[in-house]
Amino acid sequence: MDNIVDIKEQIRERTEAVERILRAYLPDDKVLSSDVVRAMNYSVNAGGKRLRPMLMSETYKLFGGNKTVIEPFMAAIEMIHTYSLVHDDLPAMDNDEYRRGKKTTWAQYGEAVAILAGDGLLNYAFETALKAFSCEGADVQRVAGALSILADKAGINGMIGGQDADIAAEHSDKALTLSQLLYIHEHKTAALIQASMMIGAVLAGADDRAVSVIERAAYEIGIAFQIQDDILDVTSTFEELGKPIGSDEKNNKVTYVTLKGIDEASREQKELSNHAIGLLEAFGEQGFHNAFLTDLVKSLITRLK
Amino acid sequence: MDNIVDIKEQIRERTEAVERILRAYLPDDKVLSSDVVRAMNYSVNAGGKRLRPMLMSETYKLFGGNKTVIEPFMAAIEMIHTYSLVHDDLPAMDNDEYRRGKKTTWAQYGEAVAILAGDGLLNYAFETALKAFSCEGADVQRVAGALSILADKAGINGMIGGQDADIAAEHSDKALTLSQLLYIHEHKTAALIQASMMIGAVLAGADDRAVSVIERAAYEIGIAFQIQDDILDVTSTFEELGKPIGSDEKNNKVTYVTLKGIDEASREQKELSNHAIGLLEAFGEQGFHNAFLTDLVKSLITRLK
Repeated sequence: MDNIVDIKEQIRERTEAVERILRAYLPDDKVLSSDVVRAMNYSVNAGGKRLRPMLMSETYKLFGGNKTVIEPFMAAIEMIHTYSLVHDDLPAMDNDEYRRGKKTTWAQYGEAVAILAGDGLLNYAFETALKAFSCEGADVQRVAGALSILADKAGINGMIGGQDADIAAEHSDKALTLSQLLYIHEHKTAALIQASMMIGAVLAGADDRAVSVIERAAYEIGIAFQIQDDILDVTSTFEELGKPIGSDEKNNKVTYVTLKGIDEASREQKELSNHAIGLLEAFGEQGFHNAFLTDLVKSLITRLK
Repeated sequence: MDNIVDIKEQIRERTEAVERILRAYLPDDKVLSSDVVRAMNYSVNAGGKRLRPMLMSETYKLFGGNKTVIEPFMAAIEMIHTYSLVHDDLPAMDNDEYRRGKKTTWAQYGEAVAILAGDGLLNYAFETALKAFSCEGADVQRVAGALSILADKAGINGMIGGQDADIAAEHSDKALTLSQLLYIHEHKTAALIQASMMIGAVLAGADDRAVSVIERAAYEIGIAFQIQDDILDVTSTFEELGKPIGSDEKNNKVTYVTLKGIDEASREQKELSNHAIGLLEAFGEQGFHNAFLTDLVKSLITRLK
């Protein structure tokens, strides 16, 4: 019980640290005052677990990283995650008016501003990440490598590819198969988690083999995280989740839970998560430790929102 | 007359060279077969003057550049220009169904795919430009500098800032002033032309002072180019332009022509263009020459589409 309280407190502290970094890198809407810039800030400041920058920062620490070069990338990955939500919520996409109990960006600012705010955040993510080149002690090759991972995992071979497959599935009259669902989860959700952890590893100077193990662990964490989302859609409440529950069933959406049942989904999710934790802990043999990182991963499958 | 025929032929040849580079860098929709990737290719292949990559390549040559490192950036700038058109044409933005005589991306593929195709092109632009790091003989500092210019001029301080101001103007009940119109043109149109020419200069190793002169010349070329667009909307035909003419008047749109009259607009446009040409020709004193580049700039204000 003490351990649970402790990890919650640690997550809270680290979330605040991420928020401070985000604030430092977001555009100042007093300097550049416009609806689009306000909508960009509104979207990022609407909250969220800040899981991606936290996983990035903790993977960076796992491999001994301790410089500011990680910070622009932490802000960048959250901007990319946020823009994807802003565009996903649009009427022409999921047509969602609420997220985390707040109005979505288009519901608050109108569609045109929301489209541009999403574009603005995606562009600003690269603008921000590029600032890493001028951080103290930045290794140019590592920064270039991290930028390539960011672009690859966010693009058509990563997150956008997953959204693409998701839309194609919605427009199809055939029921989604398990392998199609896994393709969507791998790209739409796991890709940015992979980017986060791989960038942390690369910037800390981890070798190619270690980065490849991190890519695998992050895949498992991403899928386990997504299955928990599917489970919470069945078991949670509006108050806890900040958005309507049971929406997957209402939309006849095929999820891990509808395909496998809640018990089997839960079992597989624990298996994935434990395997990922095993991969992370095995780095201990090479002298790389980060107990908080494994606790954080454990907490993801017990979360209630 | 011979000179006019000659410049047209030279532009045609160079346009084909740009098309070849674009084809080499666009994603292969046979390898990654999906509507979004097809829509990305459709949008870029719908034609266009390829002015931005051409200005980039010719500015690169002006300062003695002769390596392949320019090519990923040429493809990237055209992808960014194209994504901005794809999103601009959306029903929630300008609601245009035709561009260059072809269906716009959303009219052909639907809104959701068009939103993702625009996102995909913006992301792929950075993915592509980052490939410059692995081009033969690439100077890492110059590539990093060129990436920063690309991100800055495409973002909220550049092109997106211009679109933002354009939308705000449309939603305002006050008539647009000349300085507001110039702000929109500077950001929405000139910024990407500045990025193109500045990146050419930076990658060729031009010094900061030269890059700053290029930024100024590109601003003038961009504004002159935009005024010509406004003039053509009044003087051209549907056949020549590939889109409805007189649309500015129909939409009660304030343009350089409505504010200043066609004769004054035309005079100022020539003045801007000639001044830019003067700046470019002055580099001759330092041994930097590119006769085609100045001919190309001259041709922009005599163009009929």
